[in-house]
Amino acid sequence: MRKDFGSKPWFYPMPVLVIGTYGADGKPDAMTAAWGGLYGADMVELCLSAGHKTYGNIKERGAFTVSFADRAHLREADYLGLVSAHDEPDKLGKAGLTAVKSAFVDAPVIAELPVALECELAKFTDDGNVIGRVVNVSADESVLAPDGKPEMGKIAPISYDGVRNEYFVMGEKVGSAFHDGAGLK
Amino acid sequence: MRKDFGSKPWFYPMPVLVIGTYGADGKPDAMTAAWGGLYGADMVELCLSAGHKTYGNIKERGAFTVSFADRAHLREADYLGLVSAHDEPDKLGKAGLTAVKSAFVDAPVIAELPVALECELAKFTDDGNVIGRVVNVSADESVLAPDGKPEMGKIAPISYDGVRNEYFVMGEKVGSAFHDGAGLK
Repeated sequence: MRKDFGSKPWFYPMPVLVIGTYGADGKPDAMTAAWGGLYGADMVELCLSAGHKTYGNIKERGAFTVSFADRAHLREADYLGLVSAHDEPDKLGKAGLTAVKSAFVDAPVIAELPVALECELAKFTDDGNVIGRVVNVSADESVLAPDGKPEMGKIAPISYDGVRNEYFVMGEKVGSAFHDGAGLK
Repeated sequence: MRKDFGSKPWFYPMPVLVIGTYGADGKPDAMTAAWGGLYGADMVELCLSAGHKTYGNIKERGAFTVSFADRAHLREADYLGLVSAHDEPDKLGKAGLTAVKSAFVDAPVIAELPVALECELAKFTDDGNVIGRVVNVSADESVLAPDGKPEMGKIAPISYDGVRNEYFVMGEKVGSAFHDGAGLK
């Protein structure tokens, strides 16, 4: 038996995205969002309400970064989602996080978060969503495997459970894509 | 030190989405996709190439479901991503999965997958992405907690790692949203 819940913004797994931008004054800012995902091979989509400082910053500077919150920085990511830059202009400083200018786009990379998409604004959709073109993905050496590529277990990304307002961390490897289903062919 | 990887479709955590549709002939079909996310409080976005049977089905019938692949059906979800309905018209049957007509939209719910978004097509964007309006979320009673709402640990959603073509399962609860960051205020 299934139970019906009506229309809900539930999604499994939902990401915890830390959006880094510069304000008109050049001050780095960041906010946390959970509604978004890949929009194409080199595109990402974010649903941010227009009242956020980040929204104005993206409009103004035409760029942003998307970092994935990890287990080690859960408190910091949660803080960046709790507090508005309209109320606390130095959110990053308060969170103890470090903004470093991206070498690719006009937006700050947050040094402590291990993986970031560095994006140019492609457009705002008619619905107000932000579409970014991913110009570069950067990852901290601490999360690379011996083959030089990022490793899920080292990143330890967290996920937001919107049903219960809880965070979960990614667990163990359970299979191989384009492989495990082949036996059903 | 950070390493630059250029433009990559990497995202943490990336979902494993099983898209259920009916063909013009009323036959249920499903495919697996990883590029997509929430687009609004009652909206979801999918990036599906136009060559997929699913894309035509959505255009034709104006509806689809999004089920989240879980650990128990990893093989089945992987199979649905490996094989095209153009080659195997009875993918669901081959995968041993059961299509049940949604009571809300003109699309099949896959009985074995515990949580589904039942969606009406809102539009195709200029970029060809599918935007759906979530009319109902249904969840199997087996994944509900005593409070009657879905529980992450019972759902055990999987995530796709596009760097290594691997699947991971969601792990343990590590914090509370809108709460754990409050101490930094």
